[in-house]
Amino acid sequence: MTVPVAILGATGMVGQRAVSLLRGHPFLRVAVLAASERSAGKKYRDACKWVVPGEAYGGLGDAIIEPCDPGRLTALCGRPGIAVSALDTEPARELERAFARAGWAVTSNASAYRMDDDVPLLVPEINADHLAVTTRQGNIGIGGAPPGVLVCNSNCTAMPLVTTLAPLLREVGVEAVCIATYQAVSGAGYPGESAIDMIGNVRPHPGNEEEKLALEPQKMLGTLRDGRIVHADFALSARCVRVPVLDGHLVAVQVKTRTPISPSDATALIAGYTHELDLPSAATPLNVFIDGRDRPNAKMDLMVGNGMATSFGRVERCAVMGLKYFALSHNTIRGAAGSAILNAELLVRTGRVAS
Amino acid sequence: MTVPVAILGATGMVGQRAVSLLRGHPFLRVAVLAASERSAGKKYRDACKWVVPGEAYGGLGDAIIEPCDPGRLTALCGRPGIAVSALDTEPARELERAFARAGWAVTSNASAYRMDDDVPLLVPEINADHLAVTTRQGNIGIGGAPPGVLVCNSNCTAMPLVTTLAPLLREVGVEAVCIATYQAVSGAGYPGESAIDMIGNVRPHPGNEEEKLALEPQKMLGTLRDGRIVHADFALSARCVRVPVLDGHLVAVQVKTRTPISPSDATALIAGYTHELDLPSAATPLNVFIDGRDRPNAKMDLMVGNGMATSFGRVERCAVMGLKYFALSHNTIRGAAGSAILNAELLVRTGRVAS
Amino acid sequence: MTVPVAILGATGMVGQRAVSLLRGHPFLRVAVLAASERSAGKKYRDACKWVVPGEAYGGLGDAIIEPCDPGRLTALCGRPGIAVSALDTEPARELERAFARAGWAVTSNASAYRMDDDVPLLVPEINADHLAVTTRQGNIGIGGAPPGVLVCNSNCTAMPLVTTLAPLLREVGVEAVCIATYQAVSGAGYPGESAIDMIGNVRPHPGNEEEKLALEPQKMLGTLRDGRIVHADFALSARCVRVPVLDGHLVAVQVKTRTPISPSDATALIAGYTHELDLPSAATPLNVFIDGRDRPNAKMDLMVGNGMATSFGRVERCAVMGLKYFALSHNTIRGAAGSAILNAELLVRTGRVAS
Amino acid sequence: MTVPVAILGATGMVGQRAVSLLRGHPFLRVAVLAASERSAGKKYRDACKWVVPGEAYGGLGDAIIEPCDPGRLTALCGRPGIAVSALDTEPARELERAFARAGWAVTSNASAYRMDDDVPLLVPEINADHLAVTTRQGNIGIGGAPPGVLVCNSNCTAMPLVTTLAPLLREVGVEAVCIATYQAVSGAGYPGESAIDMIGNVRPHPGNEEEKLALEPQKMLGTLRDGRIVHADFALSARCVRVPVLDGHLVAVQVKTRTPISPSDATALIAGYTHELDLPSAATPLNVFIDGRDRPNAKMDLMVGNGMATSFGRVERCAVMGLKYFALSHNTIRGAAGSAILNAELLVRTGRVAS
Repeated sequence: MTVPVAILGATGMVGQRAVSLLRGHPFLRVAVLAASERSAGKKYRDACKWVVPGEAYGGLGDAIIEPCDPGRLTALCGRPGIAVSALDTEPARELERAFARAGWAVTSNASAYRMDDDVPLLVPEINADHLAVTTRQGNIGIGGAPPGVLVCNSNCTAMPLVTTLAPLLREVGVEAVCIATYQAVSGAGYPGESAIDMIGNVRPHPGNEEEKLALEPQKMLGTLRDGRIVHADFALSARCVRVPVLDGHLVAVQVKTRTPISPSDATALIAGYTHELDLPSAATPLNVFIDGRDRPNAKMDLMVGNGMATSFGRVERCAVMGLKYFALSHNTIRGAAGSAILNAELLVRTGRVAS
Repeated sequence: MTVPVAILGATGMVGQRAVSLLRGHPFLRVAVLAASERSAGKKYRDACKWVVPGEAYGGLGDAIIEPCDPGRLTALCGRPGIAVSALDTEPARELERAFARAGWAVTSNASAYRMDDDVPLLVPEINADHLAVTTRQGNIGIGGAPPGVLVCNSNCTAMPLVTTLAPLLREVGVEAVCIATYQAVSGAGYPGESAIDMIGNVRPHPGNEEEKLALEPQKMLGTLRDGRIVHADFALSARCVRVPVLDGHLVAVQVKTRTPISPSDATALIAGYTHELDLPSAATPLNVFIDGRDRPNAKMDLMVGNGMATSFGRVERCAVMGLKYFALSHNTIRGAAGSAILNAELLVRTGRVAS
Repeated sequence: MTVPVAILGATGMVGQRAVSLLRGHPFLRVAVLAASERSAGKKYRDACKWVVPGEAYGGLGDAIIEPCDPGRLTALCGRPGIAVSALDTEPARELERAFARAGWAVTSNASAYRMDDDVPLLVPEINADHLAVTTRQGNIGIGGAPPGVLVCNSNCTAMPLVTTLAPLLREVGVEAVCIATYQAVSGAGYPGESAIDMIGNVRPHPGNEEEKLALEPQKMLGTLRDGRIVHADFALSARCVRVPVLDGHLVAVQVKTRTPISPSDATALIAGYTHELDLPSAATPLNVFIDGRDRPNAKMDLMVGNGMATSFGRVERCAVMGLKYFALSHNTIRGAAGSAILNAELLVRTGRVAS
Repeated sequence: MTVPVAILGATGMVGQRAVSLLRGHPFLRVAVLAASERSAGKKYRDACKWVVPGEAYGGLGDAIIEPCDPGRLTALCGRPGIAVSALDTEPARELERAFARAGWAVTSNASAYRMDDDVPLLVPEINADHLAVTTRQGNIGIGGAPPGVLVCNSNCTAMPLVTTLAPLLREVGVEAVCIATYQAVSGAGYPGESAIDMIGNVRPHPGNEEEKLALEPQKMLGTLRDGRIVHADFALSARCVRVPVLDGHLVAVQVKTRTPISPSDATALIAGYTHELDLPSAATPLNVFIDGRDRPNAKMDLMVGNGMATSFGRVERCAVMGLKYFALSHNTIRGAAGSAILNAELLVRTGRVAS
């Protein structure tokens, strides 16, 4: 039995990646490609330029793009299914709510609802229990009429930080974090950054990336208490920089733990993090230690865990904060489409969506 | 009147840059190009590949490379002159001392003597008074027989940090600094980094860059007391990363000042830093504020102050350390050859070298 | 005495370059910055992002953008002046004609009128006499009311080809040319190419570049006969490829001359090409031979002749066509804004514009 | 049953790629890693830096590097096996012959013996019959004592040209070819090109690439007559340029066929090329047509046929030569290690090596 999936925003880079990753999925099946009115009615191959690796248009080049209309998509699928949302923030605000109200399970990559108290910011290997807050989604007008539900994944840059901080937080506590990022151009979508700005150049990130990064990790690493997410209590400051790399966000992390920990113990702790999830897209292990003075780096370590794991290395003593290390994740797989699919798998396996 | 200059290590990238920058200098004149035994006796154009902008071989392609022999070079110049040393660390250790003992004024870009107590690590716009410690250079067997003297400039990555920290340190004190770097490939010399490692990739710096960066700034920003340099007292932790940029080291600085300071006051303080130096290569102003969300960046801001000034921007509140900003310097001009020449100018103007 | 210049399309990359190049010009003065209705009324600094080197906004950041209205601009300047057009093809078609009819001298970088019989495609060092055809511009409704006149410069990629073919054509004749290009991303304007397409990648040029390249050189290299341009008679086939270089179009030329010529004779002929022009922006010499197996290349040779000359090298025997060489020009200076300014200088010096 | 394989030059980039590609091979098994005296005796992980994708050191990081001594390797393997040679040209000259004399089947990626009359330059999908010339290898002192044999694969840049010319040559004849190349930096091995030369830059190839390209294709496309290879009879001129791409050589081909052919017929002919080979690494189809104005390009098309096929596109009329197109192959798979392995498979399947 497979669950029908609608890709909302199928023409963008994250949408394309979702289409590509879902090929041959054991229980999710792309049933509809949806996008803006401008694209609706066109063949997929005519509606956008395919820019991700693998078979062009995921073999669906002749599929007709549908508008993002929950009623129409429900009719097409014969039932409400899962809406993987790769929409931009603005359209996401209205449409994701509409789909959830119509009984769809929405797994969103957009930032519109990420910080809403009743919407979990899922990293299933870490905080699958946060799913509990969705029972209150009626509060935000999403319904509560099961299976209508809305869950988010985080900003792509938060991913390598959160997967590596999780074990530290649990075992030795985290008081403060300074990070600097080295973010790939695919993080801006397609066409995104101009080649004129990026050829042989690195630039401070022009968006509000640092602000998002200062808030989302504490929510993802929060504790479920009385059905609510209590955000983790640590300060975080980020400096975000775009670099001429295609895929792969590298972060330099300097962290002050509550209990001091040696670099070797920290390495063992991070690499040894385990989880109970048995989902097709979950990363096992979640964090992979990479040895070498110039590691991790995107050229060598991007595809660790099929792009769903975090590679980390150069764990050393930091004279200011105590501990420092580098971590790297694939920003359009783990940091976007792959996480949205993993969240969809979680919803199916926890019975939030009928399979 | 001009002072004869010998370029030690003229065939390397920094040596080439020095040759190029000295063209048309008002009072320094390239008299000798010197390099290793392997190159000695060859024409400059045959001894290396010219890799810096501007006229090939600085117009000296037919000059014969001399060995790094102080006696021979003194004879060729008719007197001991200034030795601008672009040597590698290992040969520098022996040769720089030999030149100073032979009465030469050595301005070194090498790291061999940088942390020696009796060798100043000069940023003339900031610490020209550190020159006083050279009176004790007899202690390290450099002589003391004037005008024999040895001065160093810093690691290229320290430069944008030090020029911007100096005014903060003086006015509000500095307690701790976390930095992350985005270092250009020219910092590794020629051929240096492999294109295979750097095309579309960024990598944690494989060398001991972080260790050097943790020590040199405190010396440069130190105070002269009783004829000795008292290092500035702050902790510094660095994460260094090589990026696919040709020239220009960008640093993301997160700093805890002793007295809190607002971003706008810090901007005014850093941009308003002045100095009394009247040297041809000195930067006035030393720090140039650049407005813009994606600034400074190498493509737009590299040549501020002819490559001798630091551009800085994005001065903002840091949730962990209090203050954060980005700063950028030209690593082979300000961070290497240009600083060695500026130091030579200082030695001449302060009468340490007869003009 | 200076001639007032209006930059049409001042907000684009070529317009910015023109503003930058005209700073301190001996007899041309930027009097008005004009652009589309969308930008009109805004300050220059608010209407676009400055993306070329040198002082931001050419020091004119507070200037108010005007609409491209010939009457209004004539009033602002007190007379019709020179309109340097950096407009896109579509708006250029209407507006350039309107300005010329209103008595302006239009030097256009757009392709709208390039192949029109009565519009010269000027490379002043080569074909200044083609200016004669403008006397018939009444035919195309441009007026004929002097000084109203319209002249064009060529596609940026044609430039290194044409300057080097000119001496060959004159001395030994040219029968056929195969070229392959290595075109910088700035050729597409700003934002132009997506970084996602260009980081670590080269791509066949998606536009109609090859078609333009197959026609324009023969016109530029044509002969004026009875007041008309007789196109040069040779076949040309081009393969155009975009490469991750910021500025600088490199072309690999394989050419069949009518009379065989040795590589060394060809080198002397191309490098020895002279012209009589005495214009501030003219390149003397026009073609600069660069020695070296890996030359010319953009990193080393881009700014030959202040970006107005062509560098060439690796002149060798071609087993198929007879002769082959590489040539390089700066695509936004010689290939765009610099040529439009050079053409403006020619119009002033030949009395087509009152100074 | 598996055949033991020794990788000669296992520490270089091509050697590493061979180790990586042979993991899990159905009938070839890496039995020995061999390299220069400098590396012999060290563990693989200590003898070099692993620079290709996939598991580090192909899982053989603890293997001890052996010297390239045929006797010792025969003893280690219990018999002479297959030597995949990724040696540099100079050591290859002596060592490859020594291995063949000792009864090994040598499949070489080096250029030492490529143009020798008695050594086939194999592209098995095209010229497997050329293997016949090896019966005369006694002439060059290689032995003739079966199974001692030496076969070569071509220069990496020739590959996309040869696979696409083969069907044209057979059906419509080829008279002359002009090509221009866009060659990835991995073609120079590791460390190879300096990042300083290649960041944001393209450069005429400094080596003798054009000379090799002018000869090897005619041999590969030659006809076996009376046991000898009669080279194909067409002129070829190449311009070779290094571009900042990691892997993937793109060539712009302009070709004059003996019988004119339309672009659409040529497309069908090239894409329709078939072969009878049933080898694990053979590409089926050999040439893959890619639709799109900016295709093929390395970012999108590099891994067609697991890196063993050629992608081609933009087949159009050429005003000078008649026909033009772009073609792309993976230079370290199809153009190097992958072809050496394919040749090894051919030797096993044709009984030249006992399995």
